Amino acid sequence: MATSPKKRRTLRSRFEKTPSGPPRLRIIAATIGPGKAQLLEQIQQTGSISKAARAMGMSYVRAWQLVEALNSAFREPLVASDTGGTRGGGSHLTPTGERALTLYLRLRDHSLRAGHRDLQALHRLLRAE
Amino acid sequence: MATSPKKRRTLRSRFEKTPSGPPRLRIIAATIGPGKAQLLEQIQQTGSISKAARAMGMSYVRAWQLVEALNSAFREPLVASDTGGTRGGGSHLTPTGERALTLYLRLRDHSLRAGHRDLQALHRLLRAE
Repeated sequence: MATSPKKRRTLRSRFEKTPSGPPRLRIIAATIGPGKAQLLEQIQQTGSISKAARAMGMSYVRAWQLVEALNSAFREPLVASDTGGTRGGGSHLTPTGERALTLYLRLRDHSLRAGHRDLQALHRLLRAE
Repeated sequence: MATSPKKRRTLRSRFEKTPSGPPRLRIIAATIGPGKAQLLEQIQQTGSISKAARAMGMSYVRAWQLVEALNSAFREPLVASDTGGTRGGGSHLTPTGERALTLYLRLRDHSLRAGHRDLQALHRLLRAE
C-alpha cells in the first residue's frame, strides 16, 4: 500500500459512511469487503486498474493482487483486460463482475439499514477518539 | 493461534453459520467481529479467559490481547477479573460487556437476515471449493 495513513483513513471512512448510518461497520461477503468493492467500482468508472489504484492511493501491484484474488475466487473472472484497438491496456468488469458488485453493494446497504440502530448504540459505548 | 487449520475452520464456520443463511458473511461492528464476539460469549459461559481460549483453540496470550484491545476501545472495560473469594482468577463480562455482546449479536442477526438473499446469490457466483 503506497499511501499515507491519513489518506487511507479518509478514503475508508468516506466509503463506509452511508446516509443511513455512522461508519465502523465492515461487511465482508464471499471475500468481498469495502476495499475490494471500492476497487471494482473504480475499475468500472475509470476502465483501468492503474487509474483505479491511483484514485484509491493504492499501489498498482496491490490492486493487481486484489483483482487476481477476486478472479480466482469466483467461477468466472470479475475483471477482464481489454486487448487490441486504440484503447488497449484498459480493464473492465465482466458481467459476473457487474453482478457481484451490485449484489455486494445492495447486501451492504440492506445490512447497514437493518443494523443501524444497534450499530449506533454500540458506537456510543466506544471510547471517543 | 495455537490451533490447527482444521480446528479453526470448524469453529469459524459453526459460528458464522445461522439458521437463516449460509456462512461467508463477516460483520465487523465497532471493532467487534466474529472472533471477538465468540471470545466474549465463551468468557460469559466459562467465567474464565483461559477456559474461553481453550474452548476456541486459541492461545491464552492471544485471548488476552483481544480482551485488552476490546477493553481499551470502549469507554468501560468489557471484561473484568474476579478478585478474592474462593474462585479467584476468573473473569466475567461487565454490564458494558454484556450490552456490547448483545448489540453485536443482534446487529449480526439482523444484517444476516437482511442480506440473506443477496448473499446466497453472491455465493452461487463463487468457485466451488
